[in-house]
Amino acid sequence: MKNKTSPTIYDVAKMSGVSRSCVSLYLNNQPYVSTETKKKIEKAIKALNYEPSHIARSLTRRKTSSIGLIVFDITNPYQTEIIRGIEEFKINNHPDYNIILLDMLSNETSGDAYIDTLLRNRVEGILTTTDRISAKCIKYLQKRKTPIIFIGIGTYINNPDIKVDYVTIDNLKGAYLITKYLLEKGHRKIFHIAGPKGEVFTTLRMGGYKKALKDSGIKDIKEKIIYTNDYTIESGFKAAKNIFSSMEKPTAIFCFSDYSAFGVIDYCNKNGINIPADVSVVGFDNVYLSSLYTFNLTTVSNPQKDYGRIAAETLFNRINFTGKKNMSIVLKSEVIVRKSVAEVKENYPLNQ
Amino acid sequence: MKNKTSPTIYDVAKMSGVSRSCVSLYLNNQPYVSTETKKKIEKAIKALNYEPSHIARSLTRRKTSSIGLIVFDITNPYQTEIIRGIEEFKINNHPDYNIILLDMLSNETSGDAYIDTLLRNRVEGILTTTDRISAKCIKYLQKRKTPIIFIGIGTYINNPDIKVDYVTIDNLKGAYLITKYLLEKGHRKIFHIAGPKGEVFTTLRMGGYKKALKDSGIKDIKEKIIYTNDYTIESGFKAAKNIFSSMEKPTAIFCFSDYSAFGVIDYCNKNGINIPADVSVVGFDNVYLSSLYTFNLTTVSNPQKDYGRIAAETLFNRINFTGKKNMSIVLKSEVIVRKSVAEVKENYPLNQ
Repeated sequence: MKNKTSPTIYDVAKMSGVSRSCVSLYLNNQPYVSTETKKKIEKAIKALNYEPSHIARSLTRRKTSSIGLIVFDITNPYQTEIIRGIEEFKINNHPDYNIILLDMLSNETSGDAYIDTLLRNRVEGILTTTDRISAKCIKYLQKRKTPIIFIGIGTYINNPDIKVDYVTIDNLKGAYLITKYLLEKGHRKIFHIAGPKGEVFTTLRMGGYKKALKDSGIKDIKEKIIYTNDYTIESGFKAAKNIFSSMEKPTAIFCFSDYSAFGVIDYCNKNGINIPADVSVVGFDNVYLSSLYTFNLTTVSNPQKDYGRIAAETLFNRINFTGKKNMSIVLKSEVIVRKSVAEVKENYPLNQ
Repeated sequence: MKNKTSPTIYDVAKMSGVSRSCVSLYLNNQPYVSTETKKKIEKAIKALNYEPSHIARSLTRRKTSSIGLIVFDITNPYQTEIIRGIEEFKINNHPDYNIILLDMLSNETSGDAYIDTLLRNRVEGILTTTDRISAKCIKYLQKRKTPIIFIGIGTYINNPDIKVDYVTIDNLKGAYLITKYLLEKGHRKIFHIAGPKGEVFTTLRMGGYKKALKDSGIKDIKEKIIYTNDYTIESGFKAAKNIFSSMEKPTAIFCFSDYSAFGVIDYCNKNGINIPADVSVVGFDNVYLSSLYTFNLTTVSNPQKDYGRIAAETLFNRINFTGKKNMSIVLKSEVIVRKSVAEVKENYPLNQ
């Protein structure tokens, strides 16, 4: 945890009027800092009584330490916001640590081999945005006392055999809330575009959708689920094409991700289907693009940057104190209301 | 360079019917591969005469090697496509190497401190998407014989004092071509939304815009440049607000990046300004989102994934053979025509 009262490298930079990177160079005895700049930095360090503990420690050890980061798909903005949160925490609190990044290229491989690569590189801890990691592999890590933090996912939540550290939201509840929101707006023909079959995200978010329909107590309300193969905009577009080519039409579509919803919106824009007048569309994740006027997407919040920050903080705590019991951090999620949902004023049945 | 005739780990995986990651686990003698799977892999290795050279070498050395990657802003999709290209090349050709990632968080710091961090971690080479690295620092790297490849940027192009390896496009020419395209479509009031002042991208793309206007030979044609502070969609939105709040209106806007153009499009959508009927908008980079019907943006290609792949290939060549002369790879860029530009049929002067 960062001690707010101690001066940081940024304070030194600010007071001396030179850049943070230049202060870092100075602290590492690099040749390319001018004598004049050196004097300024030294003055600020004295005035602030600055103690460059991490860097000093790193120099003493003659090595920098590493943590590993496995991401499922680096080209997905949802993932990069998480990385940004991790990097920001690291640079402010543990600047001497390196992050070794492994991108799974969204291939359907197991994460075990990536864990293996990180262990060979002697990382002190691991952060992962994929939970395609076997129980066997997790047990091996626990035996070695190498901490691992799962970010934004839930395969191992409530698993009685294996306890892990994780930071996530309640995906089922988020999906439940947004489906309930659609029901409250009068929608009765709500389709769900789901993620790839078998993925934990898919199961949880679909579960929330099903539960909300069931709990509504509305007679004759039907589930209608369309699976996709991946997390891309194209898949959302294709799913929308299927929906609008079939006989039965929805009044609202709940997409398992904002990216999937962008595909639906793009299909509607292309085919003159007006959102929300002709169909309401909602997503999940609240990525930055959803807030643009062009998409204006009602969605469920999923605080990626907070994930990254909290996961990194949890990992560094684990690296320093291994004895604690498991951390299960579930962040709050809520419906973010924008303009992609219309009210259905008539009673059910509609448009038949 | 990858030898296409040698069997790879993927061939072994395919023939044995197990995942690549599982083959990797087997090759690294990890405990969590079942006896049955082991037999399948061994059979495939024999049949293919597969030689796991890199991994074998890595095990002999008892360490994995690293390369460093400095990115300017990990949340920008333009950057993540580059990373994807690098990762793909690495995993197919040098799977035993790790990538140490440093995100500059789009702060206005020098990259020198990041180089320093990588050197302390004993990387064998460095890839960078920022060129905020001092000549002094580059000379230091050259003295140490640590190769560095600049990706997509051009500060050190044509610098007589310092020679570097780089992969880029001709940014000036790309901007020239798209401005010429607008002129050919009859536009005479072409505004340019530029990047942050002093950035090399800004200078080159603005240079292409100016040159095209000048070369057109059209009398009274005027430059009109609006600077932005960063590479975000918000900045494009703000610039559009400035443009449409002032007396003089453009018939076309050339934005220095697609992201900036999305901001302009979003402003227009919000304010009932029709693209292209009321104003034509073009960008630069051809990021994936530009191809959506929702944006349908005419832009300049800037092959990010190729950058990543070629830069990684160049770096690994350098790591193995340091003697070669500098590599200056300039990829082709061209105008990608979509639907965001209308023709102006009347003669100049227009709308006055």
